[in-house]
Amino acid sequence: MFSTNTYASRRNILKSQIPNGLLLFLGNEESGMNYTDNTYHFRQDSTFLYYFGLDKVGLAAIIDADSGEEWIVGDEITMDEVIWAGPQPTLQEQAGRVGVAKTLPKSALEATLKGALSAGRAVHFLPPYRPEHTLKLHHLTGWPLAEIPQKASLAFIMAVINQRSYKTDHEIIEMDKAVNISGQMHLNAIRATRIGKYEYEVVGTVHGTARSGGGDLAYPIILSVDGQTLHNHYHGNRLESGRLVLGDFGAETATYYAGDITRTWPVDKTFTEKQKEIYQIVLDANMNVINALRPGVKYLDCHLISWRTVTEGLKNLGLLEGDVDEMVALGVPALFMPHGVGHMIGMDVHDMENLGENYIGYREGLERSNLLGLKSLRLAKELEAGFALTIEPGTYFIPELIQLWESQGKFKEFIKYDKLKSYFGFGGVRIEDNYVITADGARLIGEPIPKTIAEIEGLRC
Amino acid sequence: MFSTNTYASRRNILKSQIPNGLLLFLGNEESGMNYTDNTYHFRQDSTFLYYFGLDKVGLAAIIDADSGEEWIVGDEITMDEVIWAGPQPTLQEQAGRVGVAKTLPKSALEATLKGALSAGRAVHFLPPYRPEHTLKLHHLTGWPLAEIPQKASLAFIMAVINQRSYKTDHEIIEMDKAVNISGQMHLNAIRATRIGKYEYEVVGTVHGTARSGGGDLAYPIILSVDGQTLHNHYHGNRLESGRLVLGDFGAETATYYAGDITRTWPVDKTFTEKQKEIYQIVLDANMNVINALRPGVKYLDCHLISWRTVTEGLKNLGLLEGDVDEMVALGVPALFMPHGVGHMIGMDVHDMENLGENYIGYREGLERSNLLGLKSLRLAKELEAGFALTIEPGTYFIPELIQLWESQGKFKEFIKYDKLKSYFGFGGVRIEDNYVITADGARLIGEPIPKTIAEIEGLRC
Repeated sequence: MFSTNTYASRRNILKSQIPNGLLLFLGNEESGMNYTDNTYHFRQDSTFLYYFGLDKVGLAAIIDADSGEEWIVGDEITMDEVIWAGPQPTLQEQAGRVGVAKTLPKSALEATLKGALSAGRAVHFLPPYRPEHTLKLHHLTGWPLAEIPQKASLAFIMAVINQRSYKTDHEIIEMDKAVNISGQMHLNAIRATRIGKYEYEVVGTVHGTARSGGGDLAYPIILSVDGQTLHNHYHGNRLESGRLVLGDFGAETATYYAGDITRTWPVDKTFTEKQKEIYQIVLDANMNVINALRPGVKYLDCHLISWRTVTEGLKNLGLLEGDVDEMVALGVPALFMPHGVGHMIGMDVHDMENLGENYIGYREGLERSNLLGLKSLRLAKELEAGFALTIEPGTYFIPELIQLWESQGKFKEFIKYDKLKSYFGFGGVRIEDNYVITADGARLIGEPIPKTIAEIEGLRC
Repeated sequence: MFSTNTYASRRNILKSQIPNGLLLFLGNEESGMNYTDNTYHFRQDSTFLYYFGLDKVGLAAIIDADSGEEWIVGDEITMDEVIWAGPQPTLQEQAGRVGVAKTLPKSALEATLKGALSAGRAVHFLPPYRPEHTLKLHHLTGWPLAEIPQKASLAFIMAVINQRSYKTDHEIIEMDKAVNISGQMHLNAIRATRIGKYEYEVVGTVHGTARSGGGDLAYPIILSVDGQTLHNHYHGNRLESGRLVLGDFGAETATYYAGDITRTWPVDKTFTEKQKEIYQIVLDANMNVINALRPGVKYLDCHLISWRTVTEGLKNLGLLEGDVDEMVALGVPALFMPHGVGHMIGMDVHDMENLGENYIGYREGLERSNLLGLKSLRLAKELEAGFALTIEPGTYFIPELIQLWESQGKFKEFIKYDKLKSYFGFGGVRIEDNYVITADGARLIGEPIPKTIAEIEGLRC
């Protein structure tokens, strides 16, 4: 948690951006797994945390943009709740901790909102991403369910994005911690890898390391010998000699900042020559993008740098032929890297994604492409100092996609489909780091961890 | 996953219990954590798993109780989904694996249900516990949101309870595995305990062990020096000499069966004399209940056995005085054990809790008490062979509750409030095992793990 002043000053900036109406912040509820009371671990809404810092279940908050008044909405706990969940500060004490003077019981929320609406005032809220919030907004406002998504406030969305996009030094300290725990997760995973183990055994090491850091996972663990499946959450494979392990995982700190690192390493102690060739291409792509990071550079251009590096590398291996620029412009490298090169990161691993990807990563005059790969690029606009982001190029051999394109004769003048057959079963390589943009460049978030072929192999000696 | 025949035969028994109408089974969806696509780990609905075995996202199933026909409802995956989530069998192949002949696309579900309803047929469904299912039922049937809870089918609920309550040998084999992983979690936790560590460091060991077993947690980890908070999910305390650690956690296997074990151990290598006194009382309560387990015994009486043991023990320590039977009848021991002595366990740690606790654990003529402690007893009715359940008595010193009762003068003729002051900060002790009721008694599920004072201390040598 940050200082009381931090939260108050964030809210003051927000208020200055919204001329009138009520701003409604819905904190998160518990989320039942296989029945109501068997819950997933509680995760507070990030925007609620950003402005109000309180990570308790079932809170809401209101800011009156006209008067400047602020309320934390919630109920005091009962003795039954003390018995089951422990004592906690009063609502007034919690509110005071983050500089909010007033509180309101939950039962008063409906009348407050409906009163404002019937007085012709605006009620600003952010797009709900949990179904219980859609239901709650329906009950609180009386609006039909189907209308709720489009009633989300664009002014509110843009004001939040304009604050949360720029990480302060205090936030970067938390992100350093998140990335350092994430790095430790990777070191432990690589060291725990052995022929004959199952993926889930290494996953246990990874998840345990995250929790031992005081927080939890920032997102579901990707750890697979089938790295060509980009978000592979299946962990039932045996680690066989000759395979690569792709691990994409990171920790969330107890203060709710995320790390997001990917490394790829061999099941054996060393890479094969074939693995080294692909690995080095991806490493070059990673470094070429990192070297280009600075304010004013479009991240779309960074994506294209990574595609170009991959295209050149695969051309050198004889898997592609033709003009590199032409191939990049046409989207040929999407066959090998069908995802974007990175995204903003902060309290959410895809930071603020619930507010709308295009509001975060695009701008007027810079529209999202619908080409494979580019359509998944979440951040395309010019970088600015304070942006925190991931750099995560990859190269994958996805048999189903290769076979589909070949059957369509797609880009057959560039792609040596016959040679690709020998890469079926190769998997994929991704190398990902987290950077923050500075006044004149960028700096790595967290301490560096092994990344070159020699460094990775060195962990297994 | 069990054999194709297992699922078909479970469904045949179910069909024989429901004379007519459509039975609708809603499989679970992904559940977004801090935005839609950053999901908690996927957990399929247990009843869906019990009858259809498929643990994929976004499925439903229908059984026509009149014709006996069965459908798996779902959509084939797209190439984008292959890229991100990997290839998978066709819906027809998945359905065939569990003995279902027909499939239906999701888009046909609404017309199928509304068609049945407008033809005057019943649509049976189970109570929704995830808000997205409430929304889905609203869209699929046109019923008002507020009416959906009471439209759940009691006939369907009772038929499911009458099957899932009786565990087969095949299920008990899976439960043995779940409890064995859970036991390993406890051994690792006790061995990892050291003065000066933080609770979350031991939590990391525990969670990592669960995932290394191929599944995940069956429920959120309780691990705290403040064991007097019954469901304590805060893990930020430092382990100080002189404190007890209460650990209540268990694994869910990859086949979705749960283990649920509690052990209590000292931060130091040995218990203090004061800790031993309370520990032995709880251990006696645990063993007295276990020795009483057999078909025909009311589990309510087992709860009272545990209360009586605790009451006698605390009387021997001079913390209570008076007639033990009278104190038990009045609910005096609720001050020290304000929870029930156990619950059914199976695919859910509180098995089938989403179907309604009273349908599972009570019966006509056996109503739930509203006394503290007894009101939280989930299983009260007569035990039968095949029931799997937990035995988890405890003794806690909850300062807030003690102070409240003292301020009310509650049971002051029995309770030596002055002497209880020296137990503030003691925490609590709970000892929990899992048993299955047999034809003439009960057997421990899984291998035994240390439980006596000497055995627990032996782990720390």
